[in-house]
Amino acid sequence: MTGRGGHRGRFITLEGGEGVGKSTQLALLAGALRARGFEVVETREPGGTPGAEAIRALLLSGEADRWNPQAEALLFAAARSDHVARVIRPALERGAWVVCDRYVDSNRAYQSGASGLADEDMMALHRIGSAGLMPDRTFLLTLPVDQAQTRAGARDAGLPDRFGARGRDFHEKVAGAFAGYAAREPERFRVIDTGAGKEEVHASILAALADLMP
Amino acid sequence: MTGRGGHRGRFITLEGGEGVGKSTQLALLAGALRARGFEVVETREPGGTPGAEAIRALLLSGEADRWNPQAEALLFAAARSDHVARVIRPALERGAWVVCDRYVDSNRAYQSGASGLADEDMMALHRIGSAGLMPDRTFLLTLPVDQAQTRAGARDAGLPDRFGARGRDFHEKVAGAFAGYAAREPERFRVIDTGAGKEEVHASILAALADLMP
Ligand SMILES: Nc1ncnc2c1ncn2[C@@H]1O[C@H](COP(=O)(O)OP(=O)(O)OP(=O)(O)O)[C@@H](O)[C@H]1O
Ligand SMILES: Nc1ncnc2c1ncn2[C@@H]1O[C@H](COP(=O)(O)OP(=O)(O)OP(=O)(O)O)[C@@H](O)[C@H]1O
Ligand SMILES: [Mg+2]
Ligand SMILES: [Mg+2]
Repeated sequence: MTGRGGHRGRFITLEGGEGVGKSTQLALLAGALRARGFEVVETREPGGTPGAEAIRALLLSGEADRWNPQAEALLFAAARSDHVARVIRPALERGAWVVCDRYVDSNRAYQSGASGLADEDMMALHRIGSAGLMPDRTFLLTLPVDQAQTRAGARDAGLPDRFGARGRDFHEKVAGAFAGYAAREPERFRVIDTGAGKEEVHASILAALADLMP
Repeated sequence: MTGRGGHRGRFITLEGGEGVGKSTQLALLAGALRARGFEVVETREPGGTPGAEAIRALLLSGEADRWNPQAEALLFAAARSDHVARVIRPALERGAWVVCDRYVDSNRAYQSGASGLADEDMMALHRIGSAGLMPDRTFLLTLPVDQAQTRAGARDAGLPDRFGARGRDFHEKVAGAFAGYAAREPERFRVIDTGAGKEEVHASILAALADLMP
């Protein structure tokens, strides 16, 4: 029972480049919200439903150039449409908190900011596919690209280096695109530097949710 | 060498409800164009490329309500984006005629006209996914729903009756939506009644292409 719009829950997303700490903070945040007695739905994109996972498999398999940027953006929007309709909206309607690892801002940063599709087209796909559902709060986690790479490299030791696939320039472009969205929507975004320890970052995130607590 | 826009070929689509004779006329038309010395690419939607066929499989498998109308429209647009980028545009650019069994008007009629997505949203997806590529001519083949059903029933004898899946009302809505698009774009559309014999219908189609011949 959150008050706003009746019993609607809160929708929180975590965004940022690879290795900045999104999954780590998602788990800590979900735990803290549960400890306060809220129902919490933890989810991720692309994915979150059987249909969206099937689309995710299409997106991740095959050659690097399997899909042109337009087809890729449409597939992401289709997966999100299913995820929003079957998981996110129903959870919000019953008053749960939904915390989601990546959402539309990642598509904007990766498929348009760094790959040449217009941001307004990306948002049009989101409006058509998911009635434009936006988070109540989005945490943009930031860390210099080389530090994020070191962290992810330690985590994935022995696995192929996913950073090898795309150059430093690409990651800088993605970071720049994220920063631009945050600057344009200061109400929705909070930018959190993750250079500090996990618990310290977690405390900053929790403090930046105080205004959304019922 | 068609003159318009340099060497660009011609893009022809066949539209209409199930069993009206699209595939029959596509084969006859492709044969007639080849006999005149043109390179002809015969294709269909959804499908036409490995990526689009993979999306087609997602669209056709699973429960009837597997996808909401928005996700379905996005998946169709993604498949078309791949098909246009890899098959249709390259063929037109080298001067070939492309004849395609169903295209964006089928999505408009089935996913929006009869299922509640706005036509302008459907066209927005087409603009974003395929730069809005439209046919030079679209043949809307028409036949009363019960006659089309009888023809398709004879063709599919022994197979499950695909018409059983959706009621007569649905097919009437689809036919009405197609008729509306044709009325709004008389330059692009030609409406051909297929109640006559196959060769007679074929002759009408060929005659209605005279203005596009180089
Ligand atoms: N504040 C932190 N200090 C030190 N290490 C951290 C911190 N936050 C996360 N890590 C570690 O960094 C690595 C990457 O974190 P995490 O997997 O949460 O990032 P991510 O943003 O989810 O990455 P990806 O985009 O690849 O999913 C993990 O090994 C994690 O334990
Ligand atoms: N003008 C015609 N007169 C009589 N029979 C016809 C005529 N045109 C097509 N048929 C027959 O009707 C049946 C349906 O035709 P066809 O398969 O070409 O329709 P279609 O529009 O491609 O259908 P679908 O939407 O199911 O693919 C076939 O058996 C075909 O041989
Ligand atoms: Mg992660
Ligand atoms: Mg056919």
